[in-house]
Amino acid sequence: MIERAYCLGLDFGTNSVRALLADAADGREVASAEAVYASGRGGVILEAAEPDLARQHPGDYVRGLESAVLEVLDAARRAEAGFSAEKVIGLGAAATGSTPLPVDRSGRPVALSPRFREHPAAQAWLWKDHTAHEEAGLITWLAQKEHPEYLAKSGGAYSSEWFFSKIFRCLRIAPEVFDAAWTWVELSDFLPALLTGTLDPARMRRNRCAAGHKAMWNEEWGGLPSEEFLGRLDSRLAGLRRRLYDRTFTADSPAGGLSPEWSGRLGLRPGTPVACGALDAHLGAVGSNAAPGRMVKIIGTSTCDIVVWPKSEPLYDVPGLCGIVDGSVLPGFFGLEAGQSAVGDIFHWFVNTLQAGGPGRGSHEKLAASAAALRPGESGLLALDWNNGNRTVLVDQRLTGLLLGQTLQTEAAEVYRALIEATAFGALVIINRLEEYGVRVEEIVACGGIVEKNPLLLQIYADVLGREIHVAPSGSASALGAAMAGAVAAGTSRGGHGDFPSAQRAMCAAPRRVVRPQPGATTVYGELFRLYVRLHDAFGKENEGEPLYPVMKDLLALRDRQRRL
Amino acid sequence: MIERAYCLGLDFGTNSVRALLADAADGREVASAEAVYASGRGGVILEAAEPDLARQHPGDYVRGLESAVLEVLDAARRAEAGFSAEKVIGLGAAATGSTPLPVDRSGRPVALSPRFREHPAAQAWLWKDHTAHEEAGLITWLAQKEHPEYLAKSGGAYSSEWFFSKIFRCLRIAPEVFDAAWTWVELSDFLPALLTGTLDPARMRRNRCAAGHKAMWNEEWGGLPSEEFLGRLDSRLAGLRRRLYDRTFTADSPAGGLSPEWSGRLGLRPGTPVACGALDAHLGAVGSNAAPGRMVKIIGTSTCDIVVWPKSEPLYDVPGLCGIVDGSVLPGFFGLEAGQSAVGDIFHWFVNTLQAGGPGRGSHEKLAASAAALRPGESGLLALDWNNGNRTVLVDQRLTGLLLGQTLQTEAAEVYRALIEATAFGALVIINRLEEYGVRVEEIVACGGIVEKNPLLLQIYADVLGREIHVAPSGSASALGAAMAGAVAAGTSRGGHGDFPSAQRAMCAAPRRVVRPQPGATTVYGELFRLYVRLHDAFGKENEGEPLYPVMKDLLALRDRQRRL
Repeated sequence: MIERAYCLGLDFGTNSVRALLADAADGREVASAEAVYASGRGGVILEAAEPDLARQHPGDYVRGLESAVLEVLDAARRAEAGFSAEKVIGLGAAATGSTPLPVDRSGRPVALSPRFREHPAAQAWLWKDHTAHEEAGLITWLAQKEHPEYLAKSGGAYSSEWFFSKIFRCLRIAPEVFDAAWTWVELSDFLPALLTGTLDPARMRRNRCAAGHKAMWNEEWGGLPSEEFLGRLDSRLAGLRRRLYDRTFTADSPAGGLSPEWSGRLGLRPGTPVACGALDAHLGAVGSNAAPGRMVKIIGTSTCDIVVWPKSEPLYDVPGLCGIVDGSVLPGFFGLEAGQSAVGDIFHWFVNTLQAGGPGRGSHEKLAASAAALRPGESGLLALDWNNGNRTVLVDQRLTGLLLGQTLQTEAAEVYRALIEATAFGALVIINRLEEYGVRVEEIVACGGIVEKNPLLLQIYADVLGREIHVAPSGSASALGAAMAGAVAAGTSRGGHGDFPSAQRAMCAAPRRVVRPQPGATTVYGELFRLYVRLHDAFGKENEGEPLYPVMKDLLALRDRQRRL
Repeated sequence: MIERAYCLGLDFGTNSVRALLADAADGREVASAEAVYASGRGGVILEAAEPDLARQHPGDYVRGLESAVLEVLDAARRAEAGFSAEKVIGLGAAATGSTPLPVDRSGRPVALSPRFREHPAAQAWLWKDHTAHEEAGLITWLAQKEHPEYLAKSGGAYSSEWFFSKIFRCLRIAPEVFDAAWTWVELSDFLPALLTGTLDPARMRRNRCAAGHKAMWNEEWGGLPSEEFLGRLDSRLAGLRRRLYDRTFTADSPAGGLSPEWSGRLGLRPGTPVACGALDAHLGAVGSNAAPGRMVKIIGTSTCDIVVWPKSEPLYDVPGLCGIVDGSVLPGFFGLEAGQSAVGDIFHWFVNTLQAGGPGRGSHEKLAASAAALRPGESGLLALDWNNGNRTVLVDQRLTGLLLGQTLQTEAAEVYRALIEATAFGALVIINRLEEYGVRVEEIVACGGIVEKNPLLLQIYADVLGREIHVAPSGSASALGAAMAGAVAAGTSRGGHGDFPSAQRAMCAAPRRVVRPQPGATTVYGELFRLYVRLHDAFGKENEGEPLYPVMKDLLALRDRQRRL
């Protein structure tokens, strides 16, 4: 009898943590479990007066982690004869990001202290928090002037979603929290450190993926931006720089062994290898069999696009791309990240806010069913997908949504379809930009929550993008990628794998479904896309004398002024 | 004891006919009644495949007229001691327009014949039918080239909503209906002719108001456009021209006396004077005490703005204005008409289609209550009010709605308020255009359905327009104006009035309410209006190299193409 080996992947998403137990030999998914975060609205702490704010309570991660792992192990015991927790050979963790949290000298989150329990600035600053847009502007301005190389790999701009913008914001609006923090850690670093008992900032292994994509880390200039640069923003940031880090680690390397404390809490063997963390999208790409020529799209509340590119081939800096980081997905390859700040969130907003639904009315299912019966272009509608700003290629959070073409006959399902189409057009802008710079995108692998639930979206994407959409083999690609990281951290001697490519060959199955573009629809969408680009450029690009570029920005400035009255 | 005299006003609106019985001495409203049209959706016949189509069945007018008059007389008998139908001294009728209907040689609507009972082209072409946009384009093109004077008083363009566009459309798409029709009549001509037994086209008195504002009638060139001009469009239109009319009559003149047949059906004295008809907005202006410097806004599903200007003062042609017609409101004054193609219709669309309401959710009342709590500008939203095209000052039906600024936090009430604000900005564009050409607008008199129901709208209008809004004395201003026309047609000898100014002095009461602008809000709305103008000009004006101007038009062309597949 062959002794089976299992690996455990954790995926800390926006609303919940998912745990997936997979067979290390072939990637078969044995069991999964999900724990919803307790605080705020769906796990997200919001503030009415500050619409850009989105935070999470660190205690939710800790409780969610424990509860999801215990549940998945229970489920595995029921589902699989011969399974025991002893046979889990490795763990990995994916997380949203940039989601930095302030921690004390021992690495403990400041928000877990009684003094700061309720302080919004002491919580984890969730990836989609946009309060730091002013600070992002300052960082971008200074870097463009003095260190353009810092931004060359992240599209020429530093985002309000990212690490230093958020820390700088905290320093300016809540100095008491900044002062109480010894340093700041990404959620994707905090979790492996928590599990391995290496929260001590001097010992904690920081992951290459979040550091490179969100904190301007690059080996070329010896790590993070210099003390001198950060000091030009604020001298206290220079002080913080000394308490941050220089080295980073890819997700195939171990962060350490499971600590006795967490071994006890979870019932797993002490010392079980725990891989270094990575961002959820990047591990999702690993779990979706990322390879050159193939774009992995993780389509959920927002979208992340991941492409890998061999280090042996030339690669230009791609303007407007969120990031190009050596080894952020697969060691030996550049990991390219692009993305859209809101996708599923836009459809949810439409259904929950505008379709104030009576019984059976205005559900996603009903709207999608009616929308599916429409021909491309027959609604006369066109939308921009900027309800949460634009991450790629404009890199501008101060952009907003737009819906155009409505008449008195426009139906809700038409608007719903136009919103899906808008996100597909946004996706095409990204692909076109990549190909303009020589990075080919021949097919799409789609994963993420929406892919499982919305077949209409897949067909529209295939038609708009003019490319096959392969539905990723796993419905939990980020958790599977995390489990694969655990299997690689464990290594072949324990029944795991030597590297990611071996793990992918063994553990990634064939696409569950292939959606092909319909040529007629692709032609019509070509016409609509040209109109989309006109709106995109008029409202999104600061051209000489463009009268519309300031409109969204002026409205947001007025909004913020009026809300503060 | 003074013998009281009463006059009866009829207002044929979009969804129903209203009958108002007023005391001729002081305008006191004794009783009113409403009859809803039976056909279609709320009285309007629609076609899914042809979103621009809006028709009405002529039989609905006849049945609605009888039922509303019988009901108002009954109500008056109950409400007023000493009232009897004998004491009704005159009748007047207001109607929507341009709402032309094809009639046979005896003046009987073609749609009442069994052959054409169900034919959409044989029905009345309701004012808001926009199927004739191609024909409107052809007429505009030819007139601009050969007879610019035809359009000089209607803003330089001929609308798809108007008389000849609709007839030309019928000729092209339903020649069998065009051939079955001897001539075409406006609804506002058909009704007095019906009541007075003068349906015979040779005897029917056509009203100055609809002829001047909708059919290019002008004394300067001897009436309607020439046979030669119409023949250039189609020789059959030249033939029709000979069966139309040359003379027109103002609403203070009698169309005739009540026919024996209708005297019998309604129980009114045979021979009771019936005034010539006029468009509802223009009689609404009479009933709202129209005078120079005062704009009467009839705010309902759409909006009509009426201003009068003394013939003794200079008046330039105002580009983009729907019409300037001598005597269309008050004899001795030019009547200026402007308007917005959709106002209440936009709010209804939002509530009925986008706010698919569960119990108590998303009603006008709830949305207005939440929207009233918002400060100007604090939603970050801005909309264009073109869901039904733009009537003034762009005169372009191939424009559509736009909503901009939505985020993931945007609430339904914020959108609702933004839509109200958009219609207010549209109203300000019209006022600014008038004042640019020397026509002063010092105060606004508001009447129409929305004015009665939506106090939030009145405050937003006062704030955006920076002017006092006087709520018209009557809640049924068009019906009151029609009753006043009846009283003038009856004349002083029967207890009526000698002319409209005397009738206004006697019968128009003081405003029911005055809403004053709030200076702080007016300042903020000034900022928002400047942004509105940017959108308005970018999407609405065909400037050299403007990349956005074609967007709405291309979308509509694609929509129409895809729907015809």
